[in-house]
Amino acid sequence: MERLDDLLNNDLKIIQSKDIFAFSMDAVLLAHFATIPKKGKIIDLCTGTGVIPLLMSTKTKTEIYGVEIQEKLVDMANRSVQINHLEGQIRIHHGDLKEAPRYFGKETFDLVTVNPPYMPINGQDHNINEHFAIARHEITTNLKAVINTSAQLLKTGGRLAMVHRPSRLGDIITTLREEKLEPKRIRFVHPSLQKEANMVLVEATKFGGKELHILPPLIVYAEDGKYEKEIQQIYFGDGK
Amino acid sequence: MERLDDLLNNDLKIIQSKDIFAFSMDAVLLAHFATIPKKGKIIDLCTGTGVIPLLMSTKTKTEIYGVEIQEKLVDMANRSVQINHLEGQIRIHHGDLKEAPRYFGKETFDLVTVNPPYMPINGQDHNINEHFAIARHEITTNLKAVINTSAQLLKTGGRLAMVHRPSRLGDIITTLREEKLEPKRIRFVHPSLQKEANMVLVEATKFGGKELHILPPLIVYAEDGKYEKEIQQIYFGDGK
Repeated sequence: MERLDDLLNNDLKIIQSKDIFAFSMDAVLLAHFATIPKKGKIIDLCTGTGVIPLLMSTKTKTEIYGVEIQEKLVDMANRSVQINHLEGQIRIHHGDLKEAPRYFGKETFDLVTVNPPYMPINGQDHNINEHFAIARHEITTNLKAVINTSAQLLKTGGRLAMVHRPSRLGDIITTLREEKLEPKRIRFVHPSLQKEANMVLVEATKFGGKELHILPPLIVYAEDGKYEKEIQQIYFGDGK
Repeated sequence: MERLDDLLNNDLKIIQSKDIFAFSMDAVLLAHFATIPKKGKIIDLCTGTGVIPLLMSTKTKTEIYGVEIQEKLVDMANRSVQINHLEGQIRIHHGDLKEAPRYFGKETFDLVTVNPPYMPINGQDHNINEHFAIARHEITTNLKAVINTSAQLLKTGGRLAMVHRPSRLGDIITTLREEKLEPKRIRFVHPSLQKEANMVLVEATKFGGKELHILPPLIVYAEDGKYEKEIQQIYFGDGK
């Protein structure tokens, strides 16, 4: 069952489905974290229902592309683009991200964003729902393919902004560097101040110099169980 | 001018000198962070005045060695060991850490700790004081040498615990993995909740499996300008 939801506090709407998936905090925080260029071209890999392009459109007027391998999600994303009258800015392409450099051209983009599947395939705990499984497990793509594709798509000095699990940080950093993407900004997300990070936001620059900044931690819940101020602001804006 | 100082709240004394150096928060936090074995052998590289071996001796009865290249500091460290009547547990060795595997034997240690010089040599901003310069800049050793030496000294399953600057985290992770030391626990230290990390504590296991934990952030100062509870507890214990 599809439904038409408000997308945060942006006067945007998004088509979602409980059976497939609804946008996650991960996507929202990535759109907030990425350094979004005013000019040039942006592409969001593994775009799903297009939540990240939609959110980024509130911060820039430049062209934004999305790539998604699941046709049903591409269709939902394109209809969300239309409902928001953003056909002039956002285009969602159906295909495997590995084909993107051939389709869009190499060294073409100023920013690549990606909220990829997090979990390596282990033959056991795949979600029963195929759409969830592809979104969460490295079935149709994997970290190496995502980073290699991003490196091909980016101009020199262009940035890759990614959200992932902290347990994979070793793989993320070594793979980024193999592809000449130098990690420059990392922010960890902790459910509370006393808990381990359960999400990591990473930004890397193509052929960038070595200097990594670890940003202040992003804490989701305060001691009273309510959202911390910054999360409230990201979700509901200053107004509410 | 040497002086005899209290070493935190442990009934320990330490010989220090303003002209050479006094122990830093970095060393205190590393001794607190490391997973200290009850049995087996421990070695602290770049031990300076021996502050890390002294602090670790409050948590284990097992043998602790220290290696330091600056003779003056070795002498101070050995006298601190004597003053605290710890000659039966702690031995400080004068030498280059690169010689340690030959001197102590390879695959001998359960834990290596190290608070190495942080700054790459750039020919410019070396501290005028030679003792400070060697402790802070990669003059007599560097990250690659420290990690390579640690890998040689450790048994399979043994741990390296290191404190360093977050700006070097990319180098740290890639170098650890080159030496088959898998990062398992990382903790970032932030001067306050709103500031970037200025210190990173890393623990890696020799031939360890891939699973990295990003621990809760360690915040030094609370909003009121006082030490946060955890820092107070590390420095002054529960009693004060």
